[in-house]
Amino acid sequence: MKIDDLLNQSGEWLKGTGLDSDIVISSRVRLARNLSRFPFLTVATPSIRVEIEEFIKDRLKDKKIDKDISYFSVDKLNQIDRHLLMERHLISRELADDGKNAKGIAFSQDETISIMVNEEDHLRMQVLRSGLQFESAWKEIDRIDSILEGSLNYAFSSQFGYLTCCPTNVGTGMRISIMVHLPALVFVKQMDKVLQSLSRINYSVRGLFGEGTPGIGDYYQISNQITLGKSEGDIVQEMKNVIPQIIQFERTWRYKLLEDDRKRVEDRVWRAYGILRNARSISTEETMDLLSAVRLGLNLKILNTITVDVINELFIFTQPSHLQRIKGRPLEPAERDAIRADFLREKLK
Amino acid sequence: MKIDDLLNQSGEWLKGTGLDSDIVISSRVRLARNLSRFPFLTVATPSIRVEIEEFIKDRLKDKKIDKDISYFSVDKLNQIDRHLLMERHLISRELADDGKNAKGIAFSQDETISIMVNEEDHLRMQVLRSGLQFESAWKEIDRIDSILEGSLNYAFSSQFGYLTCCPTNVGTGMRISIMVHLPALVFVKQMDKVLQSLSRINYSVRGLFGEGTPGIGDYYQISNQITLGKSEGDIVQEMKNVIPQIIQFERTWRYKLLEDDRKRVEDRVWRAYGILRNARSISTEETMDLLSAVRLGLNLKILNTITVDVINELFIFTQPSHLQRIKGRPLEPAERDAIRADFLREKLK
Repeated sequence: MKIDDLLNQSGEWLKGTGLDSDIVISSRVRLARNLSRFPFLTVATPSIRVEIEEFIKDRLKDKKIDKDISYFSVDKLNQIDRHLLMERHLISRELADDGKNAKGIAFSQDETISIMVNEEDHLRMQVLRSGLQFESAWKEIDRIDSILEGSLNYAFSSQFGYLTCCPTNVGTGMRISIMVHLPALVFVKQMDKVLQSLSRINYSVRGLFGEGTPGIGDYYQISNQITLGKSEGDIVQEMKNVIPQIIQFERTWRYKLLEDDRKRVEDRVWRAYGILRNARSISTEETMDLLSAVRLGLNLKILNTITVDVINELFIFTQPSHLQRIKGRPLEPAERDAIRADFLREKLK
Repeated sequence: MKIDDLLNQSGEWLKGTGLDSDIVISSRVRLARNLSRFPFLTVATPSIRVEIEEFIKDRLKDKKIDKDISYFSVDKLNQIDRHLLMERHLISRELADDGKNAKGIAFSQDETISIMVNEEDHLRMQVLRSGLQFESAWKEIDRIDSILEGSLNYAFSSQFGYLTCCPTNVGTGMRISIMVHLPALVFVKQMDKVLQSLSRINYSVRGLFGEGTPGIGDYYQISNQITLGKSEGDIVQEMKNVIPQIIQFERTWRYKLLEDDRKRVEDRVWRAYGILRNARSISTEETMDLLSAVRLGLNLKILNTITVDVINELFIFTQPSHLQRIKGRPLEPAERDAIRADFLREKLK
């Protein structure tokens, strides 16, 4: 598989299928692992980093992980390609911003599996699925973890569990992140309440592209923070208690909004649709906000002229690096805004 | 003719024809006249006002003025109908707001001629034409004035000319008002300059519905202020010098905008079009602003899916009283905004 191929498909997690997909975009489970024979990356010399990458690389191409898995040395990807992978949620912002120091990325063709080498830990593997299905994602990552554990010797302490570079990941090394779309809660200004409740139980809430990105387009990633002292099963069980409450809260407000303020919601949805189909210049942020409104409109059956997979796809393909990759060259912001508008009109006409 | 008939037509001045109709909506010439046998309205008793109306009424139905001319006692029209006539530019805001005290209005079926009785003066007559054609409007009002002068005895002083209630109208009693659409000058913030220049030569600039209404939708009515000490010919000649400069200024900026900032103009035009075709609730002010952008787009050939007469018509038919008259009942503002949006979508689909 080539990076180019990503432009002709969108990942499984964008299909808009899976449980509760009117609110839950995707479920992600990731594991942080380190190899016992090498030092943590915080203290690894450049040559050791190279050694680590070499050591892991071939093992990641194991067809047992996935029949179509490709490995890329991040150093060999240019900045646009790296950011494309980030926009695709295949690598982290850290890996996208800095490609140096023997970093690597392996991912499956359907984009459900991705494994980063030499990010914060020697290995960061994730399974990403459409809708609310973190249990099947957990089973899948567990399967991959077992395959790799057979050929790599993980740093593990019988007292603490898996050892990781940052103490917050010690233990299971597992983080579950659920990406949810909460336009009604944003609209009725209930998000502060949600954020406070989640913070109280040590859940973190981030924006569409992880740490430090705000909740643009009314998208939020909800994750567990604590991995130490809990089993993987505990973490999953906790998520199973928490996420349905958020979903229910959003859903209740959606229908309440429709009942109390239907005209205002309809107006917002249709205006967004009208602007997306007519603008000649539009920023990423505005695009996300308007697509968010249209997505809400689709789910509330206010509008039925497009399908949710098209909206999800537009979210990703209108990101800066996707646009630059489609055009095949770097674009200035103003040019990008114009090309983004053209792209949206073409897809929504 | 009945008031209802106005809902099935739009006045000649909305046709979007006439010279320079990309910038000039309409040319209006009005004359203020008083009858020598009656006191000015400032001192007229209610019974004298009734006498004045009775005296003038039959003379206004003169087929020589126009083959289809209708007379209405404003007292007998309800508030919505009075405002409908104002939105149609057939009567002034004063007459619309207060229908009492023996006021009258006569107008021709094509809405080019309208004559108010007992407004500020005994008689206020106007000819309103599409585009830049105040000379032909002047000839027409002169013709009507002569017909009426034959049957009514005007208050006239050989020293001052025609006598009017307000000193600013003494002399010719003539005011020429050109309604212009200046979106480019507004966009590039040149309107202050225009307003200052016009004020320096004693021209007044008002909004779409006359005195005290702001320049919503980028529409401005430019009028001469001084009628004393000038002949009608002087006033016409002055207008002939002034208006083409304004037109030229707007036109220059339109093309400069297109050259320097085409994408931004296109974006503005198409977004406006998109919102008008999709909103579910929209205020009068926003409608005017967006129609203004679409009108500019039409004239700059950015957009060609509608014609300018449709835009002009929408300006008038989306006004509050038109909408209420179309629905046949008074409407609350929120309901009006929803019906306005429905009306726009229907007409622009």
